[in-house]
Amino acid sequence: MSRTTMMIDPGLPTGLFTDVVASHGEYVELVKFGWGTALVTRDLDRKIAVLREAGIGFYFGGTLFERYLWGGRLDDYLALVERTGATHIEVSNGTIPLDQEAKAGYVRRMAAHRPVLSEVGYKDAERSALLTPADWVGAIEQDLAAGASLVITETRESGRSGMARPDGHLRDDVLAAVLAAVDPSRLLFEAPTKDLQVELIREIGPEVNLGNIAAADVLGVETLRQGLRGDTLLQFAPADFPRSRTVSVA
Amino acid sequence: MSRTTMMIDPGLPTGLFTDVVASHGEYVELVKFGWGTALVTRDLDRKIAVLREAGIGFYFGGTLFERYLWGGRLDDYLALVERTGATHIEVSNGTIPLDQEAKAGYVRRMAAHRPVLSEVGYKDAERSALLTPADWVGAIEQDLAAGASLVITETRESGRSGMARPDGHLRDDVLAAVLAAVDPSRLLFEAPTKDLQVELIREIGPEVNLGNIAAADVLGVETLRQGLRGDTLLQFAPADFPRSRTVSVA
Amino acid sequence: MSRTTMMIDPGLPTGLFTDVVASHGEYVELVKFGWGTALVTRDLDRKIAVLREAGIGFYFGGTLFERYLWGGRLDDYLALVERTGATHIEVSNGTIPLDQEAKAGYVRRMAAHRPVLSEVGYKDAERSALLTPADWVGAIEQDLAAGASLVITETRESGRSGMARPDGHLRDDVLAAVLAAVDPSRLLFEAPTKDLQVELIREIGPEVNLGNIAAADVLGVETLRQGLRGDTLLQFAPADFPRSRTVSVA
Repeated sequence: MSRTTMMIDPGLPTGLFTDVVASHGEYVELVKFGWGTALVTRDLDRKIAVLREAGIGFYFGGTLFERYLWGGRLDDYLALVERTGATHIEVSNGTIPLDQEAKAGYVRRMAAHRPVLSEVGYKDAERSALLTPADWVGAIEQDLAAGASLVITETRESGRSGMARPDGHLRDDVLAAVLAAVDPSRLLFEAPTKDLQVELIREIGPEVNLGNIAAADVLGVETLRQGLRGDTLLQFAPADFPRSRTVSVA
Repeated sequence: MSRTTMMIDPGLPTGLFTDVVASHGEYVELVKFGWGTALVTRDLDRKIAVLREAGIGFYFGGTLFERYLWGGRLDDYLALVERTGATHIEVSNGTIPLDQEAKAGYVRRMAAHRPVLSEVGYKDAERSALLTPADWVGAIEQDLAAGASLVITETRESGRSGMARPDGHLRDDVLAAVLAAVDPSRLLFEAPTKDLQVELIREIGPEVNLGNIAAADVLGVETLRQGLRGDTLLQFAPADFPRSRTVSVA
Repeated sequence: MSRTTMMIDPGLPTGLFTDVVASHGEYVELVKFGWGTALVTRDLDRKIAVLREAGIGFYFGGTLFERYLWGGRLDDYLALVERTGATHIEVSNGTIPLDQEAKAGYVRRMAAHRPVLSEVGYKDAERSALLTPADWVGAIEQDLAAGASLVITETRESGRSGMARPDGHLRDDVLAAVLAAVDPSRLLFEAPTKDLQVELIREIGPEVNLGNIAAADVLGVETLRQGLRGDTLLQFAPADFPRSRTVSVA
């Protein structure tokens, strides 16, 4: 998988979900049904059919994995994955008490069922702030060694925890250490705000994998990647332009 | 009425409104057409038909009541309520000069026409900040004595006035005093932000009545109530899970 | 053109775009396809057909003009304008290095093709902060003299740069100087946040031209203009009410 944009579905109504996929689906590689929304979504099967039709992968938020694990019902979780045809499994320890070592064990177990997206970082800003750059690198490398297809760097919806600081910008020390040790094509950076999207595209390039993109921002992220928005326009040489896949101006 | 989620319609286009009700209507008990939007909504009758079909109550924002009252046209307001079939009347003094005593008088008058939702608190943050915990309790008790079905605690769309502080968190002193005096089933807490939703569910429990919920957050609020999101997951014992009404994982 | 509300399309899915125009189109005079989104919008032609049907003008964000100009391909930009039937051309220097003098030259050139909306102010908050009130007035007057139909005062999506301060409020000194020199009917104020919308309506009146209005805020802005929301209700005399175009309460 290369140049992944992961869109989060925080509970879109079914018609709007379908509309987004029909209009912008070509710019979306993965959809995450955020946290446990899948369990209260009446039309989950219809949404899944829309994604299957469009050739877009999907999975459930790590919080749902954690909820089942915490309840001692991992078999039920795997049954849900099987029944729905989820294409990936996210393994995380963002909320429940589960140390990195144990989490890596679940990465290994789940990888027997689906490609695993493992997550590093906590939802709680204070807990995440205590993670050193070396902690981040160590956890990412351990998850990859355990068989994760991609490692997700946590930055929850507010854009102010996980790899982001309370001011909404990236922790530069963490990012530098991670990029020195890991190929960014193995990472999926959660980037729910435009500030984070711009920082990551400027730093890593237009092909960076971005996640937790809101439906309303899918097209905006694509313009950032292509230098079609003020924030990244000057990064592209004039001759690069345009690279549009959809509009011919000739 | 128990466990009410009140969704605010701040002027959704008609198709999206219909889509939200079709997709998430089972989690919505009341819809408020925010402030005076009803007067400039071309398809108001179609929206109302959608709600009636789904068995969801609706009413007009208190600002519209205040606007008619201030213009000396309360009869016209009642005619609007009759013509549209609004199921409730909100009585408030969030903006116009109308003291608590006089407001309670209107609660009594309007209760002859519809179940009344009365509101306590001002839209202006500075005016609201001057209300003491005792002022809040007194006003709520007076409105209930005057016949209000539910009392709404004002926290306008920004989540930074009324019962919330400028930093977006609840005024704990006010909340504690109110809960010591009033059964929370008689209160509808406006909670337009996730921070407020989480605080109220943690403090009062999953059955707390929540209002000013955006269409985009209806499903998210439901997951908070059910312990399916990181913020409230650890409140629920593992064995509580899952309580989904819609997905069987067996 | 008088009393213009310009809605920005930041990449809405096609169904929602159509829904907004069908539901609220009577309150929208102009649509801007934000920055370079037009080049990655699969259904651009369908969106344009919807606008043409509704009699709403449209144009492309100034960033797209800048991108073509910077790439030395202004002829291609004019071909795009011709092919799509855009009703206006925005000329700006918000991002690329192009001084005011040179920008005014492009205003003159483009005015031979379409009515020109020229923009004053930079996207970068620090660059914009260096512009004095006299700089703003001078640039606006120069653009009008060069043939601009309307001059747009930049305040990008965050509402925290251009004519706004980092705290999200208007630069009063700039606004006062501009209004002392220029008829506000020749200006289109970008006002992406409710705070800015309220400030401008209070200061200039309900007929002020407002731009960068989100689809979700179109109806809300109309209620602010008509005194149907708490923020502007007390500005209107009781007898002014109601001025609704769509609901009869008689």
